[in-house]
Amino acid sequence: MALSPCPILINGTWSVPETAETSDVHNPSTGEVIAKVPMCGADVVDSAVAAATAAFEGWWQTPPVMRVRIMMRYCALLEENFEELAAMIVVEHGKTMTEARGDLRRGIEVAEYACGITDMLKGEVLENVAPGIDCSMVRQPIGVCVGICPYNFPALVPMWMYPMALACGNCFILKPSEKVPLTGIKLIELLEEAGLPPGVFSVVHGGKECVDALLEHPDVAAISFVGSSPIAEYIHKTGTAHGKRVQAAGGAKNFVVVMPDADFGKAVEGLTDAAFGCSGQRCMAGSTAVTVGEASERFIPAIVDSASALKVGPTHLSPEAKLGGVITPQHRDRVSSLIQSAVDEGCDLLVDGRNAQVADYPDGFYLGASVVDKVKPGMTIFQEEVFGPVLNVMRMNDLEEALDLAGKVSFGNGACIYTQSGRLAREFRHRVKAGMIGINVGVPAPLAYFPFSGWDYSFFGDLHLQGRESVMFFTRAKVYTERWFAPGEGDVWHQD
Amino acid sequence: MALSPCPILINGTWSVPETAETSDVHNPSTGEVIAKVPMCGADVVDSAVAAATAAFEGWWQTPPVMRVRIMMRYCALLEENFEELAAMIVVEHGKTMTEARGDLRRGIEVAEYACGITDMLKGEVLENVAPGIDCSMVRQPIGVCVGICPYNFPALVPMWMYPMALACGNCFILKPSEKVPLTGIKLIELLEEAGLPPGVFSVVHGGKECVDALLEHPDVAAISFVGSSPIAEYIHKTGTAHGKRVQAAGGAKNFVVVMPDADFGKAVEGLTDAAFGCSGQRCMAGSTAVTVGEASERFIPAIVDSASALKVGPTHLSPEAKLGGVITPQHRDRVSSLIQSAVDEGCDLLVDGRNAQVADYPDGFYLGASVVDKVKPGMTIFQEEVFGPVLNVMRMNDLEEALDLAGKVSFGNGACIYTQSGRLAREFRHRVKAGMIGINVGVPAPLAYFPFSGWDYSFFGDLHLQGRESVMFFTRAKVYTERWFAPGEGDVWHQD
Amino acid sequence: MALSPCPILINGTWSVPETAETSDVHNPSTGEVIAKVPMCGADVVDSAVAAATAAFEGWWQTPPVMRVRIMMRYCALLEENFEELAAMIVVEHGKTMTEARGDLRRGIEVAEYACGITDMLKGEVLENVAPGIDCSMVRQPIGVCVGICPYNFPALVPMWMYPMALACGNCFILKPSEKVPLTGIKLIELLEEAGLPPGVFSVVHGGKECVDALLEHPDVAAISFVGSSPIAEYIHKTGTAHGKRVQAAGGAKNFVVVMPDADFGKAVEGLTDAAFGCSGQRCMAGSTAVTVGEASERFIPAIVDSASALKVGPTHLSPEAKLGGVITPQHRDRVSSLIQSAVDEGCDLLVDGRNAQVADYPDGFYLGASVVDKVKPGMTIFQEEVFGPVLNVMRMNDLEEALDLAGKVSFGNGACIYTQSGRLAREFRHRVKAGMIGINVGVPAPLAYFPFSGWDYSFFGDLHLQGRESVMFFTRAKVYTERWFAPGEGDVWHQD
Amino acid sequence: MALSPCPILINGTWSVPETAETSDVHNPSTGEVIAKVPMCGADVVDSAVAAATAAFEGWWQTPPVMRVRIMMRYCALLEENFEELAAMIVVEHGKTMTEARGDLRRGIEVAEYACGITDMLKGEVLENVAPGIDCSMVRQPIGVCVGICPYNFPALVPMWMYPMALACGNCFILKPSEKVPLTGIKLIELLEEAGLPPGVFSVVHGGKECVDALLEHPDVAAISFVGSSPIAEYIHKTGTAHGKRVQAAGGAKNFVVVMPDADFGKAVEGLTDAAFGCSGQRCMAGSTAVTVGEASERFIPAIVDSASALKVGPTHLSPEAKLGGVITPQHRDRVSSLIQSAVDEGCDLLVDGRNAQVADYPDGFYLGASVVDKVKPGMTIFQEEVFGPVLNVMRMNDLEEALDLAGKVSFGNGACIYTQSGRLAREFRHRVKAGMIGINVGVPAPLAYFPFSGWDYSFFGDLHLQGRESVMFFTRAKVYTERWFAPGEGDVWHQD
Repeated sequence: MALSPCPILINGTWSVPETAETSDVHNPSTGEVIAKVPMCGADVVDSAVAAATAAFEGWWQTPPVMRVRIMMRYCALLEENFEELAAMIVVEHGKTMTEARGDLRRGIEVAEYACGITDMLKGEVLENVAPGIDCSMVRQPIGVCVGICPYNFPALVPMWMYPMALACGNCFILKPSEKVPLTGIKLIELLEEAGLPPGVFSVVHGGKECVDALLEHPDVAAISFVGSSPIAEYIHKTGTAHGKRVQAAGGAKNFVVVMPDADFGKAVEGLTDAAFGCSGQRCMAGSTAVTVGEASERFIPAIVDSASALKVGPTHLSPEAKLGGVITPQHRDRVSSLIQSAVDEGCDLLVDGRNAQVADYPDGFYLGASVVDKVKPGMTIFQEEVFGPVLNVMRMNDLEEALDLAGKVSFGNGACIYTQSGRLAREFRHRVKAGMIGINVGVPAPLAYFPFSGWDYSFFGDLHLQGRESVMFFTRAKVYTERWFAPGEGDVWHQD
Repeated sequence: MALSPCPILINGTWSVPETAETSDVHNPSTGEVIAKVPMCGADVVDSAVAAATAAFEGWWQTPPVMRVRIMMRYCALLEENFEELAAMIVVEHGKTMTEARGDLRRGIEVAEYACGITDMLKGEVLENVAPGIDCSMVRQPIGVCVGICPYNFPALVPMWMYPMALACGNCFILKPSEKVPLTGIKLIELLEEAGLPPGVFSVVHGGKECVDALLEHPDVAAISFVGSSPIAEYIHKTGTAHGKRVQAAGGAKNFVVVMPDADFGKAVEGLTDAAFGCSGQRCMAGSTAVTVGEASERFIPAIVDSASALKVGPTHLSPEAKLGGVITPQHRDRVSSLIQSAVDEGCDLLVDGRNAQVADYPDGFYLGASVVDKVKPGMTIFQEEVFGPVLNVMRMNDLEEALDLAGKVSFGNGACIYTQSGRLAREFRHRVKAGMIGINVGVPAPLAYFPFSGWDYSFFGDLHLQGRESVMFFTRAKVYTERWFAPGEGDVWHQD
Repeated sequence: MALSPCPILINGTWSVPETAETSDVHNPSTGEVIAKVPMCGADVVDSAVAAATAAFEGWWQTPPVMRVRIMMRYCALLEENFEELAAMIVVEHGKTMTEARGDLRRGIEVAEYACGITDMLKGEVLENVAPGIDCSMVRQPIGVCVGICPYNFPALVPMWMYPMALACGNCFILKPSEKVPLTGIKLIELLEEAGLPPGVFSVVHGGKECVDALLEHPDVAAISFVGSSPIAEYIHKTGTAHGKRVQAAGGAKNFVVVMPDADFGKAVEGLTDAAFGCSGQRCMAGSTAVTVGEASERFIPAIVDSASALKVGPTHLSPEAKLGGVITPQHRDRVSSLIQSAVDEGCDLLVDGRNAQVADYPDGFYLGASVVDKVKPGMTIFQEEVFGPVLNVMRMNDLEEALDLAGKVSFGNGACIYTQSGRLAREFRHRVKAGMIGINVGVPAPLAYFPFSGWDYSFFGDLHLQGRESVMFFTRAKVYTERWFAPGEGDVWHQD
Repeated sequence: MALSPCPILINGTWSVPETAETSDVHNPSTGEVIAKVPMCGADVVDSAVAAATAAFEGWWQTPPVMRVRIMMRYCALLEENFEELAAMIVVEHGKTMTEARGDLRRGIEVAEYACGITDMLKGEVLENVAPGIDCSMVRQPIGVCVGICPYNFPALVPMWMYPMALACGNCFILKPSEKVPLTGIKLIELLEEAGLPPGVFSVVHGGKECVDALLEHPDVAAISFVGSSPIAEYIHKTGTAHGKRVQAAGGAKNFVVVMPDADFGKAVEGLTDAAFGCSGQRCMAGSTAVTVGEASERFIPAIVDSASALKVGPTHLSPEAKLGGVITPQHRDRVSSLIQSAVDEGCDLLVDGRNAQVADYPDGFYLGASVVDKVKPGMTIFQEEVFGPVLNVMRMNDLEEALDLAGKVSFGNGACIYTQSGRLAREFRHRVKAGMIGINVGVPAPLAYFPFSGWDYSFFGDLHLQGRESVMFFTRAKVYTERWFAPGEGDVWHQD
């Protein structure tokens, strides 16, 4: 099969740069190389930033309503190409078609949200803050913004970033994950088709060298990043040291508390999706079930059944397959060794998804669903983000213990509870130390119009992706205070 | 004269710690030592943080409206003690009584603004984000917040920070400037009197050791800082590296453009205040007059007259004195040497305020007003923040040149224009690279309800002091997504 | 005992007008006449409106922050006079001291909320709505506003109105209830003391003649009214026909649904307050308990006990007295006859509060608590607002029936549910036809920062009292679109 | 030529009702009858309301983001059919193609704005308003909304109404003007094509009988109206008397002040469009030029030239034609007689547009541009809204006189100023009595994201069309206060 091209976009032109190095893109369900992505360096980054800098004045001065019109056309094009894009996600990422559609749909919702920028970009004005003096605050774009993306949501994560950045009047440089660049390229081809002026958008590819060039470039104003927490921390530190705004979303270790009064059918259904969906490769994965009291008796056997029933296979070919390959063989092995650590440290491995084999695809990077019971604080698998189809189970005596547990984790992305009690739900949501809470919802990723509000070691920066916070991130306040003098108000110098 | 006591506040108790070191507090207009401030270290910081951490849960759970009530009482107490506080500012800082009243008044306005927190703290809610699913976003306080303050506004700068932090439900640790600690102590004595529970507020004193202990303490959630840009950068970098939110306002180099159609009387009046008020020791000082075209002919002679007329003297004793001492002898010498550098690099020193002598106060740290003409880009005095009563004058041919000039400065705090033209004002405010703009206003420091929105090298962080941005800084979003199942919605496990 | 004076306030001067008629003010717990209120006519109204009209320009031009400062002082004065004001409420209204404190406290909270007007009054601004064109929206005050108040909350209801109206920059004319004018007079004496300029506020007294003069006066811009629904409808109709904004809150018939899973202790406690507090004279009274299924068995005996235990007596003298007199003998008789109608139409009168006697106060207008069981739709007592200490009980089979019932009532003020179920609470709050919902809260009157949002026959107008809606009511949007031409942009006429 | 069909839409089905009466629709530039519109009565209205009522529950429960998706598709369809729709406007209204495109474009912008409803529909939430008690405010749709439209903007005015109403979750009944029904029909055909469920939208046609049936129907919740002020007042009065929300925009008499320092080229250009565009048939027409001081000397000759140069002709055929026919022969005659009244009352008729003849179209309802000088307060033409291509000129001595003049007019829609002075612009916009202000802009109709904020006799109601106010109009606040009890918090009844 022919390799898919992996061009970059600079100043309105797509091209494939000659780079010293390329990196392989695989279909994780077959192990095939489907593209070779050019690993760009500082020179390419310089060109992209230069083009963006040149385009900024014009784009900023474009009335917001005209920027909205381009975004409206873009949304229409995304709908027209919806199935093609989703299929592309499945091939390069390995998730199921249903999951890929969700990935894209959530992303489109951000673009739709960006269409409301005429309202959200409004600043504030107050007359007569002192006699005859008016004060206004406008929000102006910050300049050239950069998005550096992970592999797990090839459509959603880039779209968390650029639609809002563009709508606010910024230029944008996207670096899709080098493991899943194809979806990003297609997304931006459509954006160009929607009528974005040349230079406003660039696409570059690469690894650390490329990233560092972006982080250090003096003409880059802001960095949006999603990835693991150690890298997020590095990005934030390096970017801010170079005078940029940075929002860097990291990893997670999300608890799902199952209370004895839960609707267990819904809890099992929810946890099955939360723990094993997208093969667990998501920062909102519900990777730890915390059963309270008697809940363990009903919940654990059921989740074992549910996990065991999940079919492993080539998601781009078979709708029955619920788990495709994980992103790389290296990642598969890392997940397997974390499972082994749990066994070694005393856990019960109730379902073992290692060694999953798919008959016709021996080179796929497969992992089945695993359930690890009796996880305890301090264990390796308790502390590390696994990012694979592995559910930890921990048993607690009451809600207070579960809340304490959440308080001890360094991450602070999501936390969920299954209960029918209004009181327990309120206690949990009000007090739990995490930024995104689900009540009878296993994956409480907020929709586009609410902030994706990770806390603590799950987020570096002040202003989150999505929602109104993203408008604030992509703009800066300019306050002006004005006074006008009536003739004669001035003193002697005025008269002569 | 007896020294004023310099106690710290921890857990509701004022005490004077025995520290290895103290630092002298002077009356800059007489040179007298008026207090000795204890230079606290990590042990004191640990106690303060521990008390704040212990008090946090109770304070957070206090309904916002009850927190407002304390703030209302606080405002009343500040009014009752208004003149005493202002006099204290004059004595330890050296500014005039009028300026001290302004310092305090602007600070009180932040406390008044904090009384509106019941509205500003509201989060968002949307029903049916998906069928039967509701989503809400609340803003919760972040924990123990720290304020590290400069000497130039002994009342205003601390009050930029703690009223909003407290109203949002945080605990607070204030480190006033070790050069002007007395005002801060009095401010917080009144706050305690207003009914704040013990532990919610702490006051510590000190220098770098104390600051570093605050920056590195794992239980501190956020740092607010105001000071010079190099220190602001250090604070931001160190604080964020330790996982804290940081907002750090730095220095400035603010231009005031005088157009040929300006009301020159008002321009001279405005610049006199902007350049020489508070002896130029303010980050919103209008330290550079940019005269456009013929404006120089009318403006320069007039500002020379105006500057020459400003009396130097003991501001705490004489209402005629417009310039008291600057904060330290070292600072006086630094300003003088910057003036000398201008002379050496070819400027015309139209008014020379060095060597100001005040008969009965030979030990006061006096500096008169200086006017330096023909400043050019690249000169030392063009680049460095002087922070003294020195006005640079630069001559430009048109507004475009002036806008270009602003684009070249690393700072981005303020920029002003004097003109009668609606068009020139709009061009200027819309395009100039600075966050706080004055139109016929020489010191465009926004009032409490607008953000103090420095840009570029004048601010490190994303969310500014004052206004709605301060509410966002002192809180973090928690999003919760909730769903409730009807009986029978669950599957088989529900039935048994 | 000497009668309390009942002056009017016009243009900063309190005086007692000579009017043809006066109306008696009673202490309802003793029946004594405590004041005689002058029934003002069109001449007094004309003077008040003229003074307000003259004062408007100056008050509007007063910077919002200065208006806030007066409001801050006012709040402090209200705290200083808190107990005196509460005692005055008890004497002229008859409610308990605890209830009177609540009446006043809720009112003060509105004044505190008004202190946040600098933020809430801000308009909107967007640059470049078209190239070079900016658009702003400011909110300007509307002029002379009028408040017409009922007797049931002598402090709260006036304060729902004037603090926000004043903070927005309007002048105000208050007509307290002629049955309880004394509290309103004292409230405004303190407001004057806080520093309001003369003419900004007027107080007039009277009945329909006075009201009509206010409704028809061409220089009155807006009417706020609280009272019964038929009068509210009249006020709205008459006021809008004369070109005024009108917000008119009317009566109610609020359901409290008690589910079988409720915390019955809390439900009984809540309903006891909701039904009998303030002798039921409140538009948020929980006047109908709707028991679902088995809830009746546990709830009804308990509420009967609770209602029977409530002591009737002189609330201004005895802290044990929970029910003072109702406002007039006529009102007492009306309530009694509504109870009788229920008996006549087939209800069970489980507790009969008629004929309450208080030994030393034979002339007090007393009514004890009554509980009427087996109320059915269509009965007189089902349809009419009783406004007395009477609880209807209706028995339903499930929540759907209860929701249907609420759908049939013309009123739409409040509706409550007692349950422990998250799902039932969500169903109820989302679907029930009423504007103010309580979940395990018997009297869900929103605090000052949320709108008092009655629906349907409980409110006439679009914008409610309290919260952000009140800012919109007391201001009107002015939108300005501005463009400035560069020299030479103009055509030939410009050149000559 | 075949007549265009004029169907109604009820419950998803288009049909032509058999009505006793029809009304002719003309092409005003030819006088031809192009359609016959059925004059519907109460029976048709009943059907439409019934369908809407039935559809409401489902539409309301549709998540806002799904409603947005339909609106996005709708916007795309409007773009696809843009030229066809514009041409339709030209034919049935008579305005130019350029004007028709503007009419439609401004309307589409409202639909685009409605795509931002996910953000704008958010309510408010605050935790711990009292210990353990949370309070939320959501905004719920109000039910069946009605739009009653004038002839002058066949696309824009309907789109002021229904996109926001629908996005908020309401059902809608549109009654286009019976003089220009065809555009409205086409607009809604596209809306149906975008995927609106049956019954959510209805289209009815008719005159007063139809309108009254809508105003009086008990199941209609709200009325949006645009038309002349007397009718707007009737609509508001009748609608509110029947318990509905009403927003009714009326007529205007908008001043354009030309200062001596104006850019006269731009002023003449702006006034030519403002006074004669759309043949003056718009409520934002700049129908009175107020020249200040010497401005008259330069402005008047120029505007006379400009007005004289405007070609009258068939706008649907000739791009040179700037003035097509006015809407009816009756309207032409009314305008002519108002011009005559001016002459009779002493004005100078500088340009006389009566008796305009277009060679091949003797039956067109043509009127040329007219300029009437020396208009004085009190004259008929000063007081009456002309709504034709007629510019009044009034001469004033200074800005104060012009501001006084605006204060005397009953209308309060728009007011403009041409000046280069920042001070004059600020004085004008701040003080002038009108809701929509233009600074160097002749027709300051706000864009979709700002309210169309007429004042006084130009608007009846509180909440305007467009902007955030429209969201408030089409929704009502529901506030819920919730508390949950911990086990054991309840009293004795809880235990048994």
